[in-house]
Amino acid sequence: MIGVGIVGGSGYTGSELLRLLCFHPEVEVKTVTSRKHEGKEVWKLHSFLKGFYDLRFVNPELRHFDGCEVVFLAVPHGEAMQFAPRFLELGIKVIDISADYRLDKETYERVYQKEHTGFDVSADPIYGLSELHREELKRAELVANPGCYPTGAILAAAPLAAEELIERVVFDSKSGISGAGAAVSEFTHYPNLHEAIVPYKVTDHRHYWEMVQELEKLEEGIQISFTPQVFPGSRGILTNAHIFPRGELEMEEIRRIYEKFYSGCYFIRFQEVARLSYVRGSNFCDLAIFVGRDRIVVVSAIDNLVKGASGQAIQNMNLMFGLKEETGLDFPPLFP
Amino acid sequence: MIGVGIVGGSGYTGSELLRLLCFHPEVEVKTVTSRKHEGKEVWKLHSFLKGFYDLRFVNPELRHFDGCEVVFLAVPHGEAMQFAPRFLELGIKVIDISADYRLDKETYERVYQKEHTGFDVSADPIYGLSELHREELKRAELVANPGCYPTGAILAAAPLAAEELIERVVFDSKSGISGAGAAVSEFTHYPNLHEAIVPYKVTDHRHYWEMVQELEKLEEGIQISFTPQVFPGSRGILTNAHIFPRGELEMEEIRRIYEKFYSGCYFIRFQEVARLSYVRGSNFCDLAIFVGRDRIVVVSAIDNLVKGASGQAIQNMNLMFGLKEETGLDFPPLFP
Amino acid sequence: MIGVGIVGGSGYTGSELLRLLCFHPEVEVKTVTSRKHEGKEVWKLHSFLKGFYDLRFVNPELRHFDGCEVVFLAVPHGEAMQFAPRFLELGIKVIDISADYRLDKETYERVYQKEHTGFDVSADPIYGLSELHREELKRAELVANPGCYPTGAILAAAPLAAEELIERVVFDSKSGISGAGAAVSEFTHYPNLHEAIVPYKVTDHRHYWEMVQELEKLEEGIQISFTPQVFPGSRGILTNAHIFPRGELEMEEIRRIYEKFYSGCYFIRFQEVARLSYVRGSNFCDLAIFVGRDRIVVVSAIDNLVKGASGQAIQNMNLMFGLKEETGLDFPPLFP
Amino acid sequence: MIGVGIVGGSGYTGSELLRLLCFHPEVEVKTVTSRKHEGKEVWKLHSFLKGFYDLRFVNPELRHFDGCEVVFLAVPHGEAMQFAPRFLELGIKVIDISADYRLDKETYERVYQKEHTGFDVSADPIYGLSELHREELKRAELVANPGCYPTGAILAAAPLAAEELIERVVFDSKSGISGAGAAVSEFTHYPNLHEAIVPYKVTDHRHYWEMVQELEKLEEGIQISFTPQVFPGSRGILTNAHIFPRGELEMEEIRRIYEKFYSGCYFIRFQEVARLSYVRGSNFCDLAIFVGRDRIVVVSAIDNLVKGASGQAIQNMNLMFGLKEETGLDFPPLFP
Repeated sequence: MIGVGIVGGSGYTGSELLRLLCFHPEVEVKTVTSRKHEGKEVWKLHSFLKGFYDLRFVNPELRHFDGCEVVFLAVPHGEAMQFAPRFLELGIKVIDISADYRLDKETYERVYQKEHTGFDVSADPIYGLSELHREELKRAELVANPGCYPTGAILAAAPLAAEELIERVVFDSKSGISGAGAAVSEFTHYPNLHEAIVPYKVTDHRHYWEMVQELEKLEEGIQISFTPQVFPGSRGILTNAHIFPRGELEMEEIRRIYEKFYSGCYFIRFQEVARLSYVRGSNFCDLAIFVGRDRIVVVSAIDNLVKGASGQAIQNMNLMFGLKEETGLDFPPLFP
Repeated sequence: MIGVGIVGGSGYTGSELLRLLCFHPEVEVKTVTSRKHEGKEVWKLHSFLKGFYDLRFVNPELRHFDGCEVVFLAVPHGEAMQFAPRFLELGIKVIDISADYRLDKETYERVYQKEHTGFDVSADPIYGLSELHREELKRAELVANPGCYPTGAILAAAPLAAEELIERVVFDSKSGISGAGAAVSEFTHYPNLHEAIVPYKVTDHRHYWEMVQELEKLEEGIQISFTPQVFPGSRGILTNAHIFPRGELEMEEIRRIYEKFYSGCYFIRFQEVARLSYVRGSNFCDLAIFVGRDRIVVVSAIDNLVKGASGQAIQNMNLMFGLKEETGLDFPPLFP
Repeated sequence: MIGVGIVGGSGYTGSELLRLLCFHPEVEVKTVTSRKHEGKEVWKLHSFLKGFYDLRFVNPELRHFDGCEVVFLAVPHGEAMQFAPRFLELGIKVIDISADYRLDKETYERVYQKEHTGFDVSADPIYGLSELHREELKRAELVANPGCYPTGAILAAAPLAAEELIERVVFDSKSGISGAGAAVSEFTHYPNLHEAIVPYKVTDHRHYWEMVQELEKLEEGIQISFTPQVFPGSRGILTNAHIFPRGELEMEEIRRIYEKFYSGCYFIRFQEVARLSYVRGSNFCDLAIFVGRDRIVVVSAIDNLVKGASGQAIQNMNLMFGLKEETGLDFPPLFP
Repeated sequence: MIGVGIVGGSGYTGSELLRLLCFHPEVEVKTVTSRKHEGKEVWKLHSFLKGFYDLRFVNPELRHFDGCEVVFLAVPHGEAMQFAPRFLELGIKVIDISADYRLDKETYERVYQKEHTGFDVSADPIYGLSELHREELKRAELVANPGCYPTGAILAAAPLAAEELIERVVFDSKSGISGAGAAVSEFTHYPNLHEAIVPYKVTDHRHYWEMVQELEKLEEGIQISFTPQVFPGSRGILTNAHIFPRGELEMEEIRRIYEKFYSGCYFIRFQEVARLSYVRGSNFCDLAIFVGRDRIVVVSAIDNLVKGASGQAIQNMNLMFGLKEETGLDFPPLFP
């Protein structure tokens, strides 16, 4: 059994880790931290988990992580950089679900407007988009789990970018509101989202820079645009990748490129239509491809809390520990 | 033109007054107050009203109410009792949308756990359920506008209670979340209401005491139960009144009793089914009656912000000023 | 491995069985029928299951059930009675998710207005509310899986009824629309349910008679009322049981009665509040108890497709085959 | 009073006309047709309108239109072309809400795959996007009311196109499901839309050709892409116009261009953010402009049944009859 610790267990990413790890046959959760809820039984905060955990929240002190081989950092960005180096020093692998290790130091500091004080670590952070970096992840000590939007967006465009076939791509993404977290805000106030689609950070969301980083690695000169929005629902991100290709491409060729690129990827499924209800609660990324006279549209559907956060984190853990990537994640979505 | 002032214009009750008064041919809104937004243009806070009002929010000082013949108090309970006496002294009629004048002093203090310091006023407060107290309202100087739940509940049961035909009634009510107000909270946090029905204050909601007050006036010994809950939607209250009658009653007789009781009431409509979408945005209370072997069920549907708050307040204003009660409120609901 | 057949695999009950059986370690699905989709791959109809089943739909002919030890009948009422006797003759156990074997013949024919032609079977049908009939279910050959509403309603009231402490109970239930099935209708038309609560069959839903049957067995003379309605969501049934007790009862005593009655029941959880999001996708029935001056309210929350249908069917299968009742169902709900 | 007839009064477009015309001071609805509901009182089908109309549905025979000066055709495309010529012959103005007169004959026949048998009419059809064709509309006898998507999309891009400043525009639109009409279908089946965003006709929706027609008139060579989708809500279309301009443009300049273009347009409002809840139930088109390093995004919000259909039809009627364009439409939206 792999000893697991979770730093930051009170939010949605933390509770989703707890939910998902119930399915995992090779894992024992040893520690869950929350400063605010220290001493409280985990199920008293996360009532849906009643019966599944006996643990109580503890403060995030290192001594509580005895017996842990890996920790998940489910904390706000800016905090993960304080924890990661210390765990790595103790020989504990780190999977950071925050933004702290996704970008190079310079980009991070520009985008997040914050000095990065934890970059001097013993291990190179690996960007944890499992399908793109599988081999590096197998040897990783520190994984930077991708943002929810970049996961769905990059997976939609990567195969064509890898063939240098994209001139311009416009990602128009719609997320369930759980992506905004468990803390209340104007943004998550019910009447503000009811019967609505709410674009925000229309041209300057920070996740944009992960898309740039990963897709430019695959294709120099690719032009990328991104607009996020929330829709009236709890879970899921649906992304329309409007792709303007270099030259004409036919459906058959495109499909071949995608299938080859994702060959052997358990969690990529090609569907005639990509629906959030086909992936809800699961780690799948469903892709549907459409070819029009004016462009290609690839629609990707993920559950933002699973493939877009905690599920992909476990997928990465599996890779890091030599398990099959789908271990504990090979269950069907919840439909309808 | 009737000069109108609104104390507390930043919440949903306030903005709904502003919306509805746009339709009113005999009214001029002269003053809207908000301490927090003093100086701000009203439409900058209530963007949906852009183009409809030139007013700016002012502090609730009496000097701003020159030219007002009536004020609406759209403030939290406990605050209205500070304003009402002062306006009445100036000869300005008061329609209080808060709870402060709905119950007698003793009941109020027990239920709201708060001393009532404003009961010593020059005018008797009239409970503003227009259909039940029309004649008194015409002469009222101080109106206590009913709670949203009591409006739908009492209207569903009053005709049978007036005939002393009810032994027991159980009100099971479902409200849109706008009833919880514009301030953010755990309660209004989107994921907490998504795909949910959330009972709260299951056996001890304060609105219960308005139902007791009004229905016991009609029928001594009536037994009343009430459970409120919110449903995933913004507007509307649907109430099931499960009525256990004294003796057997047939549909035809019941219908006759209801029709007679509500004869001449513009805003009461009998429908085969009562749907929230049939009353949305309007001041109607739709009623549907069902008779089973075990009981009678009367379903009432209202818009909580209109008939359940600001619309009924305007209906009461119409009565107080000798206008037809439907003046400015005689427009159709928004469906679908 | 237990060989399983599913008759009627195209609807929500069928697809939910397929989803849930993916989690079951002791089961192999051998046959799924659908007349309409004969020959089609199961995942082509249920796209969310892509990757989980290689089966194709077949016609419901007996020869396709070789190797099956149990069949689930997920067909409309009136059809199950044609299948059950034939499977039983072949020595195949039957779990009927339709209404055909829930009531005695006479009541069935009165309530469903249909002659029951399949009552002459080799085995007595056992009403499959697992928590109430566990011992009989262990020996059952033919299980009548309860209706979704009765499951949540009966579980909310049974402990007090068993103590003969209920004078009257009013069940006010709210269901997700998936209960209406996968076929399109006015009822399931999106704009008809958006921002709505829709009572239907207000005093005469057929599920009422299951409540009467089961609760009268526990307490003679109990008075039962029931009103169902749908809310804007896909899954879940929340039931308010408004209970008027014989005599005064205190919280502590009531709690003791409930805990004793459900002692050892894996799927019954007591919560401070019962929320649909705490049970979504799972087989749990969460109960919350409230005691007011006028009555007791027990709120039950279930997932209508799991504990209210396919999950309970599998729970019953587990009992019939000597497995622990939670086998394959012991995973956490999906929150948020 | 203008005598008005409505052909096709049973669907959402028809009932929305009836709703909106209640607000209109200069109109009398004389005739509403429905073959299916002939003889039925209008409010019995449209229960939300109980109390507002005494009319009964009639068959669409010409003799029922005595006294009508204008008819609205709220029928499926393909049918309007049969009605329009006959009304025009009688000297009755026609506002066609279907697609039949929006495109030139050749384009129509290619896009709608149907012969156009009604193009030989006495009057040129005018494309009824009121803000773009105001002067022609004042003299029009036959108005082709725009599609819902084109209304929001064209209004978002027209000012920049008119300056020939757009190289490429990608319209990503999200519509409430009422756009799919009152007839039940897989598309409108609640569980298929719950917690979902559903792209459809991803690269080949017929409304695309209206955008091409109108925007190419303003700017030759503009490249246009369009993807529609539905979101979980009843009303509203939110469109993101991702605009890639020719050359660099600054916010101030863009704003100036938009304000000049829409100078004097009552129903165009510039907002910091465009929200569906700010326009619900009203004829407004709210626009919000964002300028990023990679592109301009203009977000437009309309109510699909009002500005996207029946409201704009009435706006056009006002223009045709020499009224102010906002007559009967100058009321505020329904928020929240």
